[in-house]
Order: sequence, then structure tokens, then C-alpha cells
Amino acid sequence: MPAQANPATPQQAIDSATVALACELLARPSITPDDRGCQRLIGVRLERLGFDLEWIEEGGVTNLWATRGEGVTLAFAGHTDVVPTGPESAWATPPFSPTIDEQGYLRARGAADMKGSLAAMVTAIERFVTDRPDHQGRIAVLLTSDEEGPARHGTRAVVERLRERGERLDYCVVGEPSSSERLGDVVKNGRRGSLNARLRVLGVQGHVAYPQRARNPIHLIASALARLTTEHWDEGNEFFPATTFQVSNFDSGTGATNVIPGEALLTFNFRFSTESTSQSLIERVETILADAGLETQRDFQLEWNLSGEPFLTAEGALLEAVIQAVESATGQRPRLSTSGGTSDGRFIATLGAQVVELGPLNDTIHQVDERVLASDLDRLSVAYQGILAQLLAPHHDTEPRR
Amino acid sequence: MPAQANPATPQQAIDSATVALACELLARPSITPDDRGCQRLIGVRLERLGFDLEWIEEGGVTNLWATRGEGVTLAFAGHTDVVPTGPESAWATPPFSPTIDEQGYLRARGAADMKGSLAAMVTAIERFVTDRPDHQGRIAVLLTSDEEGPARHGTRAVVERLRERGERLDYCVVGEPSSSERLGDVVKNGRRGSLNARLRVLGVQGHVAYPQRARNPIHLIASALARLTTEHWDEGNEFFPATTFQVSNFDSGTGATNVIPGEALLTFNFRFSTESTSQSLIERVETILADAGLETQRDFQLEWNLSGEPFLTAEGALLEAVIQAVESATGQRPRLSTSGGTSDGRFIATLGAQVVELGPLNDTIHQVDERVLASDLDRLSVAYQGILAQLLAPHHDTEPRR
Repeated sequence: MPAQANPATPQQAIDSATVALACELLARPSITPDDRGCQRLIGVRLERLGFDLEWIEEGGVTNLWATRGEGVTLAFAGHTDVVPTGPESAWATPPFSPTIDEQGYLRARGAADMKGSLAAMVTAIERFVTDRPDHQGRIAVLLTSDEEGPARHGTRAVVERLRERGERLDYCVVGEPSSSERLGDVVKNGRRGSLNARLRVLGVQGHVAYPQRARNPIHLIASALARLTTEHWDEGNEFFPATTFQVSNFDSGTGATNVIPGEALLTFNFRFSTESTSQSLIERVETILADAGLETQRDFQLEWNLSGEPFLTAEGALLEAVIQAVESATGQRPRLSTSGGTSDGRFIATLGAQVVELGPLNDTIHQVDERVLASDLDRLSVAYQGILAQLLAPHHDTEPRR
Repeated sequence: MPAQANPATPQQAIDSATVALACELLARPSITPDDRGCQRLIGVRLERLGFDLEWIEEGGVTNLWATRGEGVTLAFAGHTDVVPTGPESAWATPPFSPTIDEQGYLRARGAADMKGSLAAMVTAIERFVTDRPDHQGRIAVLLTSDEEGPARHGTRAVVERLRERGERLDYCVVGEPSSSERLGDVVKNGRRGSLNARLRVLGVQGHVAYPQRARNPIHLIASALARLTTEHWDEGNEFFPATTFQVSNFDSGTGATNVIPGEALLTFNFRFSTESTSQSLIERVETILADAGLETQRDFQLEWNLSGEPFLTAEGALLEAVIQAVESATGQRPRLSTSGGTSDGRFIATLGAQVVELGPLNDTIHQVDERVLASDLDRLSVAYQGILAQLLAPHHDTEPRR
């Protein structure tokens, strides 16, 4: 393992089973959608514990669904794929040669997002199962290698498979890096929805000197655009900030300054709270366009792409177990949040499962020199073990072994 | 001459000195700014009539200022350059092999815009000077080969030269193809102004999931844009239609749907009547931006480029002479118009001259198979001669020779 080869690596980090597994995973350049054998590495460890493995290959994506036991199901979910490194020369240490520095940081692409979490899940399960081989309910592990990419053939595909055969999934912990400043300070108990649109405004090209013979698509959409950008979509609620609308692209024009363009192409995105639904937002946009005198097909074409409805785990056994386990492992009570981008939790929540995201600090994800405190991975593993103990061994001594 | 080589060319067309000269000019592929010796061809003819020639070469552009006589000055102005042909295979006849077809159309790039007019000017002057070698006042000819291009080193440069030395220019006939359906049905007695702007809206790039950390330039400009596109700038007047505003380009966005762009780039254009000035329009746009809460440098950068102030010859000796000459040559009274794009008249008018545009039909200009009725060029030459007679031989028999 590269980590052992590094003379700067402190001995106690190497002694950690979690950090050791993390390094094994991080040495594999598993850029989306290439799993590079990460899931098989984890699968072998789970198989040893008596897990049944089901490999779900779809559209070039590797997915693993592993289960042990029966009944009430607690799943750990995560992804083995990582985002590209950018120029490797910009990194202080090579991105796929995991290194622990003198400050105790494990450095590599994917250290925080999210191979560190995967290692912590595996070692938590190993300790828990060793301790309680006859645990209640069912432990599940859902892994994909298509989270950072299109996310079409990953968790979504696995969830569809589970839905078709009516499989039970009660609780799910997603290993996304949820922490903000200290490990466990934030637990995500939901995510906003995300809705994309592509709007093509249909005009008639012409010469700027003869506007009466043309129809300027920029002018056609201007009033509606002003209203869309100033609309208050909702006020949010206790768990979600207000819904936001952002235009990401506006392209119109030939480049010439004397030509009225023939069309304008806009893309925009909603991040929305549970106070709105994709359907309510679509209807409101359509009303604003109609109020501006625009008629579909004649004046515009509008395509919608729902990335995910919002989900929320406002209360319940999972949230209680997570809060208690984090408090026990870190000494602090986590804050609940639904902010940020989307995650695969949006797919899992559609099964009716309670879903939370708990993972390490996200301050370096998708950046050069991505890193995570090695000791945080050990504490994260303890927190995961605590969740297992709360939900699947409630009458046992819940103090996790270290 | 190619026209003579064509068996389809009717004899009477070849017998016309105007058509013959037009064919000589049209055989030269004088695409902007390349004059290809056209001006020298005309210069030789004028020199024979006793004109003084002044060659003004500037920035690779050939210009000719030729004068005969002294005092009240009537100038004929035009350009020898033509726009590109596009794919020659799309033309029914080769664009630089002037051909007269069976319907009597002279076909070639530049036939209507505006080598036909140039030929008509030269033959009109030839007949007039032969008839009245001791004419009153001064005849001038102003030719450029940079009208269809940037128009920086052409008529504008000649006009600056004339202004510097205080040369007199009272009346000017520009040979632009002013006619709409029949020769002489429209005379342009002015042109709208043209004002261009380039607006850079300054935002802050970010992720669509975190709009509070970004500043969307499309949103910043949306309200002001809605107002700009619906503003009534003026009502126009007896001679000009209302001022128009058109956005020609709106570019913003990285192409990604999850990124808030860092800036937006817009270009827009005013075509404006004499009820507005470039300064009044600039001030009103700046007010609209300020009313929308936008501050220069912080929120936007705005560059203006004045292409030309509007000009108008509402009345006077030139207009009377042109109307009478056209009526005499064509049997119909021309309609006055200021519509359409810009022309070099905008530069000449700044000398305080009365300016009109009179030329053949403009229905095929800048298109494939550009053409003009050969007989129209003969009648146009008669009209030009009539203008000379009206203004520079008022006490003489003003009936032009044919």
C-alpha cells in the first residue's frame, strides 16, 4: 500500500483498519464510471461476514447490493467513483497515491468524497457483525460507480430493481461528506429537489435596420425572464431554504451586430423545497410565459428534466439513532441540514426509506489536494457502528467497541 | 467586353454608352476594399472632360475626388467596391462576366449596387459638359472603394480632408439603389442614425445549488432588458419612422446546466430618427440601467460606437431639382423616404451639404443574380443629367439630350 511506503505516515494511522482499507480503495483511479475493482474489494470483505452479494451491471456501470440477515433493513449507501483530478502537477502529492501527511491528513482524490466513508462503513460492519453475529434485522450495502456522472445506471437502477421485487428498505445512511467544520457537526436529513429546463425561443431572423420584418427572440422573452428572475417561488420551511431559480445559459445571436437573431436558447434550474413540487413549478413557469403573451410551439419550445424531487427525513428512528451515535462518537450533537447539491439519497428516498447523509468534512471535495483527517475516518466508523447498534441491536450494550 | 461577347445581348443595350461603361466596371471583381482600377477607368473619362483629379489613398483604400469648375458645388458620390458573391455556382451567370439577358436585365455583382449608377453619372456628366462646357458652379465626383466594408478609410476620410481645407460642397447625389418597384419611385432624402453598444454585465460565477454565493449576470440585467425592449424611444416624425432598439447578441453561460455564469455579453443597436440624438439615447439607456439598480464598473461595462447620426434633406434646391429630373426622366413623381440601412450620405451630410440618394431598384442587391434593367440605367443617366441642368445651368434649356 502506498501509505505504508511513505516514511511520513504515522504508525497509528497505518494501524487503523479503516485508514488501511481507505488507502487500498484510494490507490485505484476509479474515475466515473470506472469502478476499478473497488466494489469487489469491499465485496470480498462483506462476503467473509456472511453477506450475500448481488452484482448489478447496467450501462457499463458496476453496482453492488449486499445483504446480511432479514427483516428491518438498514442500508449503507455510497459510490466508488471519483471526479477527475485535473492536472496532476497541481497536486502536492499524486492524487492516486494515498499519503498521510504530518498533520494526519489522508490525501488522495476521493479521500473525502467518498472512499473514506466506504472504508468506515466496512470496518463498522465488520466490528458490529463480529460482536453481534446474530443481530436483528438486515444490514445492506448499496454501492455504485455512477454517482459523480450522469447517475442514470447507478443507484437509480438498483433502486428500480429493488422496487420491482418489493424489497424492504427502512433506513439508509449515505456516506456523502456532510460535515462542515468538524466531523459530525452536520447531518443531512434531506435534499432539495432539482429541476432543469431547456427553453428555445422561436423568432424570425432579420436585419436590425428592418425590425418590422423580423421577430427578435431576445425581446420576446425579456419580460417573462424579468418575472422569472424576480419571482418568489416559496418561503421554504423549517427544513428547507426557499426555492431558487437560476438561468445557467442564455445564447442568442449570430455574432454580427446588424442581425436580429432567429432564436434564443436558455437553460435554467430550480433547487426546490418540499413547499413546491416539480409539477407546481412547471405550471407556474408556463403561466408566466403565457402571461407574457408567449404561446408554446409558436413562440417557444420548453423541455423539462427532473433531476430529483426533494426528500426529507424529518423525524424517526434513523434520525434518533444517527444523532445519538454521532454525539457519542464525536462529543457533539449534529445540526440537521438539507442544503447543498443533490445526492443519491433522492433515489433511495423514493422507496419510502428514512434517509440521512453522514460523512467527513466536505471542504476539499472536487478540489486539488482533496484530504480528510485520518482520525476522522476512525471516529466516523465508530459513529456508523453506533447506528447499527441502535437500530439492529437495541437491547444489547450499545457502546461500540473501538 | 463580356457583354458584347454574349449572343443574347440585344444590340440597343450595347449601343448605350452607359451600359457599355457599366459592363467595363462590372467585369472587374472589385470586392471591398479592392478597387481593381475602376476609379482610374472613370478618372480617365472625367479627365478628358477637364476634371482635376485628386487621388486619396488611405489605409489600403482608393478614393477619388474629381472636380470641374468653381463655386456652387454639386457632387455625385458612389462606391466602386462590391460585396462578395457567395458561391459562384449559385449564380445563373458568372458574377463578374456582365451579361444582358433576354428580358433586358444587366446581370453581375454590383449591377444595382452601384456600378450601374456610376456609369450613369459619368455619361450624364459627359453629355452635360459637352452640351454646357461653360456651366455654372462646380461638378464634383467622389468615389471610394470602402463603402461595403468598415467604411473608415473611404468617404469619411475624403470628407475629413474636404472639411480640413474648407472645401465647398452644396449638393450631393449619392448613387445608392433607392428605387423600390420602378426606377425613381423612391428618392432617399435622409437616413436614420445608427448607434451600437456592447454591454458586459459583471456577475460572480458559482454553482446553481448555492446562488447566495454567486451573482447571476442574466438575472442582474433581466429587468433592465425588459424595459429596454419595450421602451418607446420616440414617435419618429414626418420623415422618419420611430427609433428602434434591437438586441443582436446575448451570450452568457458555460454550457453546463449547474453553473451560474460569471458574466453576460450583449450587443444592441439603435436606428434612430432626428427626434433623438446619439447623446439622448445614451443617456436614456444609462438611466434605465441605473433605475434597475445597476452601477457602472461594479455591475457592467458599456461601450458605445456611433455609426452615424441621422441626416435629413427636408427641402431645398437639390430636392426640387431631383424631383423634377426624376419626373421628367421617368414620368413619375418620386416618393421621399428615409428608411433602410446607412449609406455614405451620413458622412457627406456633416459638411452641411444637402444630400439625396437616387439609384436603380434595390430588390436584388447583396443577393445572387444581382441585376438591373439595362434601360433603367439609361433613364437614370437622363435623370442625373437633369439634376446637373437644374442646378448648374438654370437659365439654359433644361431638357436633357438623350
